[in-house]
Amino acid sequence: MESSKTGRRPGTPQTKEAILDAAIASFVESGYAATTIRGVARAADVDPALVMHFFGSKDGLFDAALRGAMPVRELAVALSGDVSSLGARLTRRYLEVWESPETGPRIRAIVGSIASTPAAAQIMRDFMSGELATPLAKSLPGDQPERRAILAAAQLMGMAFARYLLAVEPMASMTTDELVISVGPSVQRYLTGDLG
Amino acid sequence: MESSKTGRRPGTPQTKEAILDAAIASFVESGYAATTIRGVARAADVDPALVMHFFGSKDGLFDAALRGAMPVRELAVALSGDVSSLGARLTRRYLEVWESPETGPRIRAIVGSIASTPAAAQIMRDFMSGELATPLAKSLPGDQPERRAILAAAQLMGMAFARYLLAVEPMASMTTDELVISVGPSVQRYLTGDLG
Repeated sequence: MESSKTGRRPGTPQTKEAILDAAIASFVESGYAATTIRGVARAADVDPALVMHFFGSKDGLFDAALRGAMPVRELAVALSGDVSSLGARLTRRYLEVWESPETGPRIRAIVGSIASTPAAAQIMRDFMSGELATPLAKSLPGDQPERRAILAAAQLMGMAFARYLLAVEPMASMTTDELVISVGPSVQRYLTGDLG
Repeated sequence: MESSKTGRRPGTPQTKEAILDAAIASFVESGYAATTIRGVARAADVDPALVMHFFGSKDGLFDAALRGAMPVRELAVALSGDVSSLGARLTRRYLEVWESPETGPRIRAIVGSIASTPAAAQIMRDFMSGELATPLAKSLPGDQPERRAILAAAQLMGMAFARYLLAVEPMASMTTDELVISVGPSVQRYLTGDLG
């Protein structure tokens, strides 16, 4: 085998894991754009062809990194139990996955590495807060207007990302009216309803 | 003036607008990472120093592009009127801004240009659909389980982006319990409630 001849690691499952670890480290430290198959191979001490063999492309590596970072099984735990309290269980589990010291930092880093610049987050934050949430808060009559406004803005942003940027189905194919009827009451609840 | 001497455009408001237009075109066509002050200056036929004078940095250009693309005044229209129907008005207005032939394509392109790769959207879409929404839909008893699951997933994603990636306040400082109480009922409504 070529990998033995060169003294590099052979293509075992352990090697695949080592490649993925190197890829995750590179995505997190250098971002998606600066990560290369060659650099990942060097960091994992394998031939670039082996990286291609296991993952097919840089996107394949990113896909595997994302799946590895997000512990779907942890989320699935929330699915068992009474469906009438599934919303609270799922929300809590989802928050825990993003916040746990074991899984949280890696998830945040991997998802964040998609952004081509760290400044993007700050610009988006200033925009969401200054241009959307602050004017909205001023028009709210009840308690905690800032919190209400940002919860509503986060819901609208999630809807727009899923529908327009990810174009995920069946959300991308819903009509505007269907979305207003489906999402509008959630936004209304944030703005004027009982938030506990 | 240097700009007159070189035959380039002087620093008028029209020039500022021309620079911004060139920047938007570059962000949309080449992405954030490949956009440079020098390239924008060349496209707008001005000195790079003038770009810096007006916008300070590439991030300043991006910030201006984002603010220019998102017609905040259009959203503000939704704020006037009865607050009890603000949720529906705001949701509709927000969708219209993303969908209108005048504003939609530019907003989607500008926000999308933050992603360092077009493949990122596809990977995130497959993940959101395959790993999150599909298993969730299988555990739902009611009608339209796929639609319910993706609406819930979009809400959770919006919450996570605002809290963890953008770290926008006051959402970033809320406790997990507060978020479960605030967001959980919206998720529950998508999963088992009346969606109209």
